[in-house]
Amino acid sequence: MTKTRIGIIGYGNLGRGVEAAITQNDDMELVAVFTRRAPESVSIQTAGVKVDHVDNAESYKDAIDVMVLCGGSATDLPEQVPHFAQWFNTVDSFDTHAKIPEFFDAADAVASKNDTVAIISVGWDPGLFSLNRLLGETVLPKGETYTFWGDGLSQGHSDAVRRIAGVKNAVQYTLPITEAVDRVRAGENPQLTTREKHARECFVVLEEGADAAAIEKEIKEMPNYFADYDTTVNFISEDELKANHSGMPHGGFVIRSGESGEGDKQILEFSLKLESNPMFTSSVLVAYARAAHKLAAKKDFGAKTVFDIPYGLLSPKSAAELRKELL
Amino acid sequence: MTKTRIGIIGYGNLGRGVEAAITQNDDMELVAVFTRRAPESVSIQTAGVKVDHVDNAESYKDAIDVMVLCGGSATDLPEQVPHFAQWFNTVDSFDTHAKIPEFFDAADAVASKNDTVAIISVGWDPGLFSLNRLLGETVLPKGETYTFWGDGLSQGHSDAVRRIAGVKNAVQYTLPITEAVDRVRAGENPQLTTREKHARECFVVLEEGADAAAIEKEIKEMPNYFADYDTTVNFISEDELKANHSGMPHGGFVIRSGESGEGDKQILEFSLKLESNPMFTSSVLVAYARAAHKLAAKKDFGAKTVFDIPYGLLSPKSAAELRKELL
Repeated sequence: MTKTRIGIIGYGNLGRGVEAAITQNDDMELVAVFTRRAPESVSIQTAGVKVDHVDNAESYKDAIDVMVLCGGSATDLPEQVPHFAQWFNTVDSFDTHAKIPEFFDAADAVASKNDTVAIISVGWDPGLFSLNRLLGETVLPKGETYTFWGDGLSQGHSDAVRRIAGVKNAVQYTLPITEAVDRVRAGENPQLTTREKHARECFVVLEEGADAAAIEKEIKEMPNYFADYDTTVNFISEDELKANHSGMPHGGFVIRSGESGEGDKQILEFSLKLESNPMFTSSVLVAYARAAHKLAAKKDFGAKTVFDIPYGLLSPKSAAELRKELL
Repeated sequence: MTKTRIGIIGYGNLGRGVEAAITQNDDMELVAVFTRRAPESVSIQTAGVKVDHVDNAESYKDAIDVMVLCGGSATDLPEQVPHFAQWFNTVDSFDTHAKIPEFFDAADAVASKNDTVAIISVGWDPGLFSLNRLLGETVLPKGETYTFWGDGLSQGHSDAVRRIAGVKNAVQYTLPITEAVDRVRAGENPQLTTREKHARECFVVLEEGADAAAIEKEIKEMPNYFADYDTTVNFISEDELKANHSGMPHGGFVIRSGESGEGDKQILEFSLKLESNPMFTSSVLVAYARAAHKLAAKKDFGAKTVFDIPYGLLSPKSAAELRKELL
């Protein structure tokens, strides 16, 4: 068996997760990890795998089948995907929903010109949740689609709380509101406001002498992040934060509640319950890296999204095995 | 917009459902319904649509883009798919899991030779459930997959009860056992016996003078169908059966409970709650009929399964619209 040879660019949580996910897949091997830091300062888990500077990546052109880009969506990926797609098939987890069309076009221009495959915006949202939103509205054209997130740690909201003066540390959880989820699952197709769908809960460690009441007020009234939600603020110690809030759980539900042609109520739901958000995203990235390699082998070049890729290409099994074992 | 022109072969529950689903999709139109009965004896819902004898189908070769085959898996589809795939792109809901490989090969031989597309085994199981089984084991290679069915009416089991002497009418429901589902959702990865996963409940109308106790015993001890399950038998009147048990609800769950690369527990679930099993299957068939038309337009001929078809092809929206609206 020829293995799919993977490179990783960026060694944060996602990069580490991709490295770990590769060990679960016998048909894949990690060739190198690329970093902007001094390579000798980065130590990875897998014995015998090279850590190299990102500027040297081009020289691995013939040694790597798919480069998994593990940078951030704000600045890393918009620069890195068009850059590395000139030499490599790529997979990324770009998740700034509003900018996906322009990101796709930039990736497609480079990938189409250079005969590479660039699969963009892979993960669970965007990603698996998007697939189920598409499936729901297509199979049940008459109906409503609901996406709920949580219970889960939101990095962006945690950061927003940490930036408040007097806050030493903080985490924020997004919580779907059970009553709303139950109404949707019961097929009521309710109109729900932002406040009715999700609540927010913060665990905050204060700097010494900070004004708890003022900070709680500042959090709850913060526009965009908290003002439109019912927010609970808990003040805890740094020890308690470390002990109970170090994980990165997340998840959620996509629910399509609709009617088929003769008026029968039909409900479709896809849900995830994740102990680690980045580790799951990494697992999805690795499955799509396999698909990128197969697409390139078929000379089906250019930028792609999860919508363009049949599930069969994600699997190490042959089409005949899949039909026999899983259909 | 050029509409996808659909023909239906077989006008039972599924055929009627396909007809109704087409009315929910502006980009599709029903051209004709084909039947083995005398065409004038079959009246359909859609005004202006022809009912013709199945033997005349060939003459619609240029008028129909996709033929949806709505016969049964036991005898109709193994004969009809290879027959009609010589002239038409086809979609079917063949659901005899064990015979899928040979069914696929027969369809593929004809479709490949005649430049048509034959999408086989479409629906929810096989179909959407199969897709989620594949996704689960691919994204989380270390873990267990569980499929639970129900609450739902099982046609095969209802028929088995009806065949017992002294039974006038009957329906049988398959019920997933809540405790087992809860353990799986909690990530326990239990080993479950057949009896621990599903229970069966029968509602039986007796012929006058029939021996209830003997019939209950015969049901509960019936090999394959009931002996391996905890079965409840309720005797009711014909009126009660008609009033409360005329629907065809079904559904179920596919759950993948696994660990990502660093040992974090990750759970993926896909579930359906269907008021009408055949009407939902029909809705899925129609979405895949659209995909069959698109594949044929790209000259991607031959037999296909749901594993071979990207979700994007199911939708009437363009790839750019999907990226903008749903990713």
